[in-house]
Amino acid sequence: MTDFPEMKNDLLLRALRGGEVTRPPVWMMRQAGRYLPEYMELRGKYSFFERVETPELAAEITMQPIRRFSPDAAIIFSDILVVPQALGSHVTLEEGEGPRILNPVRSAEDALGYAVPDVEDRLHYVMEALTLTRKALYGQASLIGFAGAPWTLLCYMVEGRGSKDFGKAKAFCYSHPEAAAHLLQVIADTTVRYLKAQVAAGAQAVQVFDSWSGLLSPEDFNVFSFPYLKQIADALAGDAPVILYAKGSWYALEALKQRTKASALGVDWTVTPEYAREATRNEITLQGNLDPSRLLGPTDGIVKLTRRMIERFGVRRYIANLGHGITPNVPVDNARAFFDTVKEYGTGPGSIV
Amino acid sequence: MTDFPEMKNDLLLRALRGGEVTRPPVWMMRQAGRYLPEYMELRGKYSFFERVETPELAAEITMQPIRRFSPDAAIIFSDILVVPQALGSHVTLEEGEGPRILNPVRSAEDALGYAVPDVEDRLHYVMEALTLTRKALYGQASLIGFAGAPWTLLCYMVEGRGSKDFGKAKAFCYSHPEAAAHLLQVIADTTVRYLKAQVAAGAQAVQVFDSWSGLLSPEDFNVFSFPYLKQIADALAGDAPVILYAKGSWYALEALKQRTKASALGVDWTVTPEYAREATRNEITLQGNLDPSRLLGPTDGIVKLTRRMIERFGVRRYIANLGHGITPNVPVDNARAFFDTVKEYGTGPGSIV
Repeated sequence: MTDFPEMKNDLLLRALRGGEVTRPPVWMMRQAGRYLPEYMELRGKYSFFERVETPELAAEITMQPIRRFSPDAAIIFSDILVVPQALGSHVTLEEGEGPRILNPVRSAEDALGYAVPDVEDRLHYVMEALTLTRKALYGQASLIGFAGAPWTLLCYMVEGRGSKDFGKAKAFCYSHPEAAAHLLQVIADTTVRYLKAQVAAGAQAVQVFDSWSGLLSPEDFNVFSFPYLKQIADALAGDAPVILYAKGSWYALEALKQRTKASALGVDWTVTPEYAREATRNEITLQGNLDPSRLLGPTDGIVKLTRRMIERFGVRRYIANLGHGITPNVPVDNARAFFDTVKEYGTGPGSIV
Repeated sequence: MTDFPEMKNDLLLRALRGGEVTRPPVWMMRQAGRYLPEYMELRGKYSFFERVETPELAAEITMQPIRRFSPDAAIIFSDILVVPQALGSHVTLEEGEGPRILNPVRSAEDALGYAVPDVEDRLHYVMEALTLTRKALYGQASLIGFAGAPWTLLCYMVEGRGSKDFGKAKAFCYSHPEAAAHLLQVIADTTVRYLKAQVAAGAQAVQVFDSWSGLLSPEDFNVFSFPYLKQIADALAGDAPVILYAKGSWYALEALKQRTKASALGVDWTVTPEYAREATRNEITLQGNLDPSRLLGPTDGIVKLTRRMIERFGVRRYIANLGHGITPNVPVDNARAFFDTVKEYGTGPGSIV
């Protein structure tokens, strides 16, 4: 086990444990990304796969927003499609276009052919990047690892590319539910191994992104998404706190709280803080949920809405974040307004400290 | 006033009034569309604008699914972007691509320049198509007119094209709320005139499609969408029953029921029938909500889920439909399975009649 620097700022971990805090921790989904000029510079020099697969580059990119904004957490720079890659998907990416999978799942036989790979070996570069980053962070921020949820990864593996409705992936699941269950289970088992390896390499919390769970009806969510999110959260609970983010699945907040061992739930911006708190009985840490599009608007609006968001969620059991990833066209100063507003919360003149 | 054929089948209108029925009426959003071979034939001969702007063609296309499936309602073949066209947007459409607007709204000044046009004159072809269709239907099915909701139309008018998140349109509204309010009001006023003209021309009910309301936070929905949906529903209530369909805005069902004069609310497939009934106190007609992707799966699944859907919504105050429009790649027999299941509901052996 590597010796890591002592934690000087454990605000995120305290919030995940439900401990007392004077302000909520803050980070942003996709905070290491295209809205940062220093990221665009590296993007001009190295291909996407070079950036993801070179531990030093991934660590450097992860650190970029930390140096600029000092948030309370870093999320490792990587991509959810590395797990399909480890499973045998041939992923290509034209810059500016979405990813493509050249050998998508075309039949039940295809799906039944997948098996759990030696993910620690195949994705060793992610673990190396985590270890490098954990050291570079020097205890100033917590390090978050992540993976895509089985449902979301199946969507890409079957559809072969991004889609508005992932109709082909859904039709596959409805027509071949047993083959779909096999593939989802293989992805879930792979993800458990992968996230445990991430924790061993230095990740202090992990987030599972179900970016497309909101395309499912509540009944289908219970078949194709929930069981695998639960397996992952329950399997990891002894290793590190788990954040489950099921975008668009407002109807699932109650079950994700009641029936999994997740430490926190991500909330998108279509859910009010009041609804999210009530659905989860105020018994779990919630993370979110400013509309990312708000960062395209004026900074006075960002400051006002961010403060109001904290008031509505409450300071405890809360992680300030966006409701989804920051988009490429956000001015850096607007992102800064969001970070600064959370970090200054409760310390201004006239505030209760 | 034109003399129209006597109604032999007023099931939809009865359901909209909350009357007694032995089975729910059924129609499908986008039922006149690309999954039909006879539609594809006309699509090969005439451009999109020829199909929309030639009353005989629009009426013929509207009638195609009626002849095939005998649903209880026809929805006029048209496009929500005809209202932006009437307002001065230059809409182009490459077949297979989404629509583009060549002169999108770029500034607050642009937005403030819009004014209510003579929509009856500009869109006379829609009214002519409605009159032709109402006669052709011969009372066998009710005729539904429609329009896009002001928020959804603003999205296209500002963004200039389809988008995953309509970030540019949202940023415009956050940065220029007064100019946005002006444009939304102009669209709403235009839409009221347009829908009243549709009713005068033969539409027996009208539906307002807010396809992108689900991109808004509940707070922003209350600013940029709800007030205009309410204005339209309230202004039309004396003319014809109004169906409000705010896709993705599960949080708004209660307010749309309590605070507007809508006769029915559309429900997408991410909302359970139980939630929708509870949120609206079982006091309004609901329409929906089979996941359109289910029509890509096997027909036994379609039959089972459609029957279950009716059981869960209940027969009264209910219009069987999909949760969104039917997609181009659906086999015709699968669409038929949906229509037939609803039409045979309650008449099979062993059923309670």
